[in-house]
Amino acid sequence: MTKRPLEILDQVLNRQPVIVCLKGGREIRGVLQGYDVHMNLVLDKVEEEIDGEVRKLGTLIVRGDNVIYVTPSVE
Amino acid sequence: MTKRPLEILDQVLNRQPVIVCLKGGREIRGVLQGYDVHMNLVLDKVEEEIDGEVRKLGTLIVRGDNVIYVTPSVE
Amino acid sequence: MTKRPLEILDQVLNRQPVIVCLKGGREIRGVLQGYDVHMNLVLDKVEEEIDGEVRKLGTLIVRGDNVIYVTPSVE
Amino acid sequence: MTKRPLEILDQVLNRQPVIVCLKGGREIRGVLQGYDVHMNLVLDKVEEEIDGEVRKLGTLIVRGDNVIYVTPSVE
Amino acid sequence: MTKRPLEILDQVLNRQPVIVCLKGGREIRGVLQGYDVHMNLVLDKVEEEIDGEVRKLGTLIVRGDNVIYVTPSVE
Amino acid sequence: MTKRPLEILDQVLNRQPVIVCLKGGREIRGVLQGYDVHMNLVLDKVEEEIDGEVRKLGTLIVRGDNVIYVTPSVE
Amino acid sequence: MTKRPLEILDQVLNRQPVIVCLKGGREIRGVLQGYDVHMNLVLDKVEEEIDGEVRKLGTLIVRGDNVIYVTPSVE
Repeated sequence: MTKRPLEILDQVLNRQPVIVCLKGGREIRGVLQGYDVHMNLVLDKVEEEIDGEVRKLGTLIVRGDNVIYVTPSVE
Repeated sequence: MTKRPLEILDQVLNRQPVIVCLKGGREIRGVLQGYDVHMNLVLDKVEEEIDGEVRKLGTLIVRGDNVIYVTPSVE
Repeated sequence: MTKRPLEILDQVLNRQPVIVCLKGGREIRGVLQGYDVHMNLVLDKVEEEIDGEVRKLGTLIVRGDNVIYVTPSVE
Repeated sequence: MTKRPLEILDQVLNRQPVIVCLKGGREIRGVLQGYDVHMNLVLDKVEEEIDGEVRKLGTLIVRGDNVIYVTPSVE
Repeated sequence: MTKRPLEILDQVLNRQPVIVCLKGGREIRGVLQGYDVHMNLVLDKVEEEIDGEVRKLGTLIVRGDNVIYVTPSVE
Repeated sequence: MTKRPLEILDQVLNRQPVIVCLKGGREIRGVLQGYDVHMNLVLDKVEEEIDGEVRKLGTLIVRGDNVIYVTPSVE
Repeated sequence: MTKRPLEILDQVLNRQPVIVCLKGGREIRGVLQGYDVHMNLVLDKVEEEIDGEVRKLGTLIVRGDNVIYVTPSVE
């Protein structure tokens, strides 16, 4: 049985953090709170690791066209 | 319960400034006054920090396709 | 109350010049005479400053996808 | 009163040459003979100046997504 | 008889792993669990080989516009 | 009287070769056999000159988004 | 008589291999088994030549926006 890509995102809403890989080499991590059909994302408790240092970004509204992939983070 | 990405922007309209991260490495900060479905933004009291110096830009209409993410700025 | 980004442009039509920041690092300045939903712009009395020298371009029809932001110029 | 960007092009049809600034740094000059809603252009008597030398290109059908701006050339 | 590109993806759903070649030089490998009309993909058991080292990424939702091609991996 | 850009292409169908300038610096030359609304092109007897050497490519179906301009070649 | 670009592809379905030139400098060769309106392609018996070495890729689903042109390979 096939799974619709965007519906998979429902399974990780408000649960364990996801990793979002963005175009341009950025990778952020946060709790997914919402999304829409363009893959615009609302993320909470967002952290970005740059050169080994963690920058806390709080809540983020990401424009979908910047996303390469979303993955539940492995812990 | 899921939150629609663009509706989240309603919560920060005309309140504390938001940080808008743009493609090409620019980051601006201002009070969100409006937006539309393309993530075109109206920002007021906009400031951009370049090399430690703050440039005041006043009111800005940003074309949505330049946006990477929007975040309420942490103070 | 929220403001629609494109409607804000109405307030600067045929008034003080606006600065238009274009992709690729160009910045032009002129009087906004018209626009449409794609942010295609008609500008009059356009000037571009390149390396400290001002180049007069007259009337310009700018294709909207080149626009990063539009701002009323501060004088 | 606002002017629609594409309708402005009507005023320069088959008259004095226009300058078309293209993405990638090219600039061509020719008489506008037609256009459509995508800003696809038909230009006649097209010339391109490269390193001070003028290359005559005749009639050109330009795909609109390459256009940065169109301006009536100043003489 | 012609085959519709996206329907071909049905034949590899939940079977042997596929290789997905992404823009920017990345190549990932995983079991295809779903897709949609934009070529958004759900992949499971994803692995990425970087400089000879394998990084396990688990489940991935890939935004379709990053895809160059999908191919059943040869073993 | 205005001319629709794509209809101009009708005048060169199956006649003298056209030059097609593509993004990325390539320029090909061939007889236009067909086109559609996206400026997808069918070209026959296509030749590409690379470093002074002519490479014969036969029939080509070019995806429209690669086209910068099309021009009847001057001989 | 004009030919529709995508219909030309019908003539090479399941016949002699085609060469597909992709953005980013890649060129692959294979038997066309299907396509759709976005120029998404299904290719079989795909080979890619890199630095004089041939890499066999089997069946490929290529996302259409990566295609520059398709041409029946000359033998």
